[in-house]
Amino acid sequence: MSIITLTTDFGIKDHFVAIAKGKLLSKIPHCQLVDVSHCIDLYNVGNASYVVSGAYASFPKNTIHIICVDAELHENSRFLLMRFDGHFFLAADNGICSLLTQEREDAVEKVVLLQNKPEHLSCMDLFADVCAAINGGADAESLGELIGSEDYVGMTELRPRISEDGNVIFANIVYEDHYGNAVSNVSKKLFEEVGKGRPFLFTGSKYKMTRINKYYADFNTETRALSEYHGSSLLIFNDLEMLQVSLYKTNPATSGSVKSLLGLGYHDPIIIEFESKNE
Amino acid sequence: MSIITLTTDFGIKDHFVAIAKGKLLSKIPHCQLVDVSHCIDLYNVGNASYVVSGAYASFPKNTIHIICVDAELHENSRFLLMRFDGHFFLAADNGICSLLTQEREDAVEKVVLLQNKPEHLSCMDLFADVCAAINGGADAESLGELIGSEDYVGMTELRPRISEDGNVIFANIVYEDHYGNAVSNVSKKLFEEVGKGRPFLFTGSKYKMTRINKYYADFNTETRALSEYHGSSLLIFNDLEMLQVSLYKTNPATSGSVKSLLGLGYHDPIIIEFESKNE
Amino acid sequence: MSIITLTTDFGIKDHFVAIAKGKLLSKIPHCQLVDVSHCIDLYNVGNASYVVSGAYASFPKNTIHIICVDAELHENSRFLLMRFDGHFFLAADNGICSLLTQEREDAVEKVVLLQNKPEHLSCMDLFADVCAAINGGADAESLGELIGSEDYVGMTELRPRISEDGNVIFANIVYEDHYGNAVSNVSKKLFEEVGKGRPFLFTGSKYKMTRINKYYADFNTETRALSEYHGSSLLIFNDLEMLQVSLYKTNPATSGSVKSLLGLGYHDPIIIEFESKNE
Repeated sequence: MSIITLTTDFGIKDHFVAIAKGKLLSKIPHCQLVDVSHCIDLYNVGNASYVVSGAYASFPKNTIHIICVDAELHENSRFLLMRFDGHFFLAADNGICSLLTQEREDAVEKVVLLQNKPEHLSCMDLFADVCAAINGGADAESLGELIGSEDYVGMTELRPRISEDGNVIFANIVYEDHYGNAVSNVSKKLFEEVGKGRPFLFTGSKYKMTRINKYYADFNTETRALSEYHGSSLLIFNDLEMLQVSLYKTNPATSGSVKSLLGLGYHDPIIIEFESKNE
Repeated sequence: MSIITLTTDFGIKDHFVAIAKGKLLSKIPHCQLVDVSHCIDLYNVGNASYVVSGAYASFPKNTIHIICVDAELHENSRFLLMRFDGHFFLAADNGICSLLTQEREDAVEKVVLLQNKPEHLSCMDLFADVCAAINGGADAESLGELIGSEDYVGMTELRPRISEDGNVIFANIVYEDHYGNAVSNVSKKLFEEVGKGRPFLFTGSKYKMTRINKYYADFNTETRALSEYHGSSLLIFNDLEMLQVSLYKTNPATSGSVKSLLGLGYHDPIIIEFESKNE
Repeated sequence: MSIITLTTDFGIKDHFVAIAKGKLLSKIPHCQLVDVSHCIDLYNVGNASYVVSGAYASFPKNTIHIICVDAELHENSRFLLMRFDGHFFLAADNGICSLLTQEREDAVEKVVLLQNKPEHLSCMDLFADVCAAINGGADAESLGELIGSEDYVGMTELRPRISEDGNVIFANIVYEDHYGNAVSNVSKKLFEEVGKGRPFLFTGSKYKMTRINKYYADFNTETRALSEYHGSSLLIFNDLEMLQVSLYKTNPATSGSVKSLLGLGYHDPIIIEFESKNE
């Protein structure tokens, strides 16, 4: 059974998602459709890349991941089929392929520029045709023109910068999640490479922290009950192994989020200073 | 495999949608359930009709479309099974069948008044029974009483009015979507029939426009970059071929919508004046 | 075909739900995944219990219901597989099993303390393994250690109190739904046992009512049209047979909810006084 995932900025109140699913089910009756998200920030390719990066690897190899964000079909638009890390990705040539693969360019197997046909009224018509072809065993190459990474739109999100002395990481918040967590662009790998186990001082907004929780509830419960830590700020490497600022068990809808309570939101800078004398 | 779609005003936080799905899966274990929308404006049959109209035709013929909006089961409520344009529709007799079919009455194949049974505690119990019967090959006629269009509730949404001289369309905004677009009740067909290719002046709120974009990004990029058009208002025939007012790449959650920025919202009037001397 | 339902506080915008589904589909390719809700109030086990209680019984027996709310996996966390009323439930040992079963302890068939493995990075890794084992025919007992109700976390939500003379129920609002209804913790069973058919006076916030509607639209339409009752407050036993305060056809997003219009919200007290002379 073919699994197809959908990531869009279509929202959930209109008929847009159902149209996509109807077209896919019309061509591939027994496919398993899985919603990744339809609440991508409108037209935000970086946001879509973050969510798809987080989700795709949990699916079996050969899953097809459709990304419909900023993907209007018109006379100048281009659409891509990318084979990456054993999965298929269908998206507009709007930078998302470069964002998805920026940390693992070696895992890009091939990228095909798809051929749109006059009967395609939207990118979903094209994508449904391609999904059906893949499901029928077609080679990616047969569905369009193989292109190199210099031939599709490159895009870079904010990336961390390391000070010349190797003691400081200058980085940014790049995602805010449902729990109100503020996710930075500092990976665990980068943190460990630069920090080499040294003590550090994290600064975000006007707040400073010096410890990374192993898990959210990782507080000292010898002197205080765990419930007394509700609302405490913490640093943690999240499920995607990115450094994240969190407030223990707060609720953005009621008590608040990292953005509303600490003033640390999308694209805001953070600084991590490692102790230099330990080097 | 039987495909069943669901359109409701149940929302997504409670157990209501899951109850519906559990009942359907209990009777038809291998059906493919597809959510169209559970965020229909509460009790708004016109809203439901717009969304279902937009979605149904993308599905294979014989798909069953369940619409649970303003569909309380009690001693006086009536429920319908409609065969329309090759699809099945299950809904309360609350006007939705007339709205769904108002532009294509010729495609109504049959309407059956369903027989509720004492063991049905909600319309979903009835609908699950009917879906199982259809799935088992039952004829629509065997599931209730065949009735004519005069026998079910008629309802009309706001419809465009043409001036006596045939030069002006007086119409309304009838839907606001996830992107903040304001959709009117002027179809491309009506626009072309009345306009006959003449230049026109569109007025909505205090704004005027004279051009219809072929696609959203259809701007003159010889003198300005496309990104400079972000926020520009435009007219377009949307995916359902209805005239729509849009703001290029704005976000209702942040920068704004047609309603918040142009003051043009649900049920507001619009006017399209065609040049009379060209006739 | 195995049916697995999901109830979480993951929200719908991030990659969290898709990760769960990807892991399940990787282990059980043909399972039918059904979302119950991903909008549980964050970390709110009582809220999750209400929604799951409402949903589970509509599914076929042997359905697996996964509940991921306040379910962080770390060195001290415990996870349970519960067999209850012919269904399987997977959840953290955080009180939800006691809440789900508090009205029907006799229907608890067994509770197994699951064994987490080092390769499990989140509770979904563990749950996917357990689902695959159940799907493969494994006995619940073989998946961990059978434990008694004294061995898992007990939790009690607010429960109604009866006055000593048996004439008054002191209770609370325990849930607010998508329609703005305020659901109390007074079951129809309790109401009838205490009331024995006597007239009653309901008080909530500063409002009083003396009648329970048989259905929402159950108003006297001899002297007024049904549409004139829009906005009227009413009492009703909801689909879970719990006493509920509603406003007829209001919309929380526009006209208002029981909370915004009557001032009666989550955890607020209500009082039901039955006429004493009738006893």
